[in-house]
Amino acid sequence: MNARGVVVTGAHGFIGRHVARGFARQGYTVTGIGHGRWAADEWRSWGLTDWWESDISAAILDERAGKPEVLVHCAGSGSVALSFADPLADFQRTVTTTVSVMDFVRRKSPGTRVVYPSSASVYGVVAETPITEDMPCAPISPYGMHKWIAERIIASYCRHYSISASIVRLFSVYGCGLRKQLLWDGCRKLTAGDGLFAGTGEEVRDWLHVDDAVELMRVAVAHSNSACPVANGGTGQGVSVREMLTQLTSCLNIDSSLVKFSDSARAGDPTVYVADVTRAAQWGWGPGQHWHERVAEYAAWWKLEMGIDQSPGYARADAGNDRT
Amino acid sequence: MNARGVVVTGAHGFIGRHVARGFARQGYTVTGIGHGRWAADEWRSWGLTDWWESDISAAILDERAGKPEVLVHCAGSGSVALSFADPLADFQRTVTTTVSVMDFVRRKSPGTRVVYPSSASVYGVVAETPITEDMPCAPISPYGMHKWIAERIIASYCRHYSISASIVRLFSVYGCGLRKQLLWDGCRKLTAGDGLFAGTGEEVRDWLHVDDAVELMRVAVAHSNSACPVANGGTGQGVSVREMLTQLTSCLNIDSSLVKFSDSARAGDPTVYVADVTRAAQWGWGPGQHWHERVAEYAAWWKLEMGIDQSPGYARADAGNDRT
Repeated sequence: MNARGVVVTGAHGFIGRHVARGFARQGYTVTGIGHGRWAADEWRSWGLTDWWESDISAAILDERAGKPEVLVHCAGSGSVALSFADPLADFQRTVTTTVSVMDFVRRKSPGTRVVYPSSASVYGVVAETPITEDMPCAPISPYGMHKWIAERIIASYCRHYSISASIVRLFSVYGCGLRKQLLWDGCRKLTAGDGLFAGTGEEVRDWLHVDDAVELMRVAVAHSNSACPVANGGTGQGVSVREMLTQLTSCLNIDSSLVKFSDSARAGDPTVYVADVTRAAQWGWGPGQHWHERVAEYAAWWKLEMGIDQSPGYARADAGNDRT
Repeated sequence: MNARGVVVTGAHGFIGRHVARGFARQGYTVTGIGHGRWAADEWRSWGLTDWWESDISAAILDERAGKPEVLVHCAGSGSVALSFADPLADFQRTVTTTVSVMDFVRRKSPGTRVVYPSSASVYGVVAETPITEDMPCAPISPYGMHKWIAERIIASYCRHYSISASIVRLFSVYGCGLRKQLLWDGCRKLTAGDGLFAGTGEEVRDWLHVDDAVELMRVAVAHSNSACPVANGGTGQGVSVREMLTQLTSCLNIDSSLVKFSDSARAGDPTVYVADVTRAAQWGWGPGQHWHERVAEYAAWWKLEMGIDQSPGYARADAGNDRT
């Protein structure tokens, strides 16, 4: 057993690189495996000691993963839309990699604790909020279905082979470096003078900053066991799309009246999607900074990225790709 | 669309070959794809027009499956015990083949109706019997989990891509040619003078003859739709292990007092496992011959196989392998 060793699959992705950095800062030696080509000085800046560019297969894990204390399986698909366009590729990225990881742990390193960042998409359309972990899962996209299947595979391996794991169902994760979704689109459109957004603006989401998500996954290590407990990754607080964009306009010095909505609710898009975070709180976790500050931080990073404002503090190395 | 064309994956297996024969007898042209080497005259005797020995992959399906009216996906793992010993292989046989089949249908032949022989093992330990299709599924082996995941993948493809499918959850399938499980072990042991069996003998199962299973799958074609309905494949009648073995002794001309039980219930082995078959009946299906006759038929086949009794009627071509 490599004490204080962690393997992060998908470490080149938005969440994966933040996981790598978060564990490195806690004194772990971090090995990354996954897709993505980046320079050694870049991956080292994210806390990685080793980076192996590869599919997540039994062969690469057997060769490179060793016997880590922890494995955080961040590899997987990152797009609901792409999951509809190519469900087989989505399955392979999410499900096939998961069974490879779990079978590696079973065969080679059964003492490794596995943490899996799953997704609130496993719940599907829910009858009530806040959403608790025990609510029935009825995913409504191939993406959500495959995340849910990956969860069930992990739980099955835990049960039958006494492997310790835990699952964190992430709600709407955001943060500097995320080059897609609401804040990214918001920055691009608003600064271009386009304030028209899809939906009603009243869609309420549970926005979780990536640093808080990483801290929850770090806390989850100690709560991993063969029952494979699940904790929601959210703040427990709902914030509407309109509120987020209004805060963003303020940070970008744009008149908030620019923000308009098409007013047509998107099919299958639930109105309110907020986590019950009692279990995460029981694990000793709580969210960090207020979302107002996090949105301001994002806007500052974005301006720096675009060369609009050279304020210091958000280095280029924070850039993520579009696979979370 | 190849009207009256059916592709049977896993057509070399016990259930697969009976499916091939059953559809051929209804006038279908049957193409078989799967593992297993057998002579052309043998697979032709089972009703196959073509046989392609191969993994069930996107490549072979694209090349050989055409646009069949029906696809019956019989390929998959056939052993709970092996699923514990090698869960990755079990996953690949059951789940990976299923996503390959469904993605082939999505891309190349969306009008094909898919019928999937699943397993009652998806239910796990149930609180009450008879078991209805709407009871929650909580499989207790990798085998059952993977069958359940395969079901969910089929249902997801049906929902998102308007594919028509149906699922038959088979209970304890038996019949001439099955070279494993209770009747096979019973014939071998009883004729060798060994009458000690594991368990209490009071375990009640729903024994479905393979011909009845095939007829239910044929009926399921017409009930396939994008909601992917599920029907139990059983008779609705529970028969204990002791009753089956007692009937078998009678057919083998062996004193029934030879049959003894270890009296230790096997862990995780439910006492009563009987299907509610209301839905199959609504589909117009009903079981055929009485199980007494079917057990007699099995005993006669077994004796012929062993050269014990050369009574006519059960040709060597009924031999199955041990993958159901």
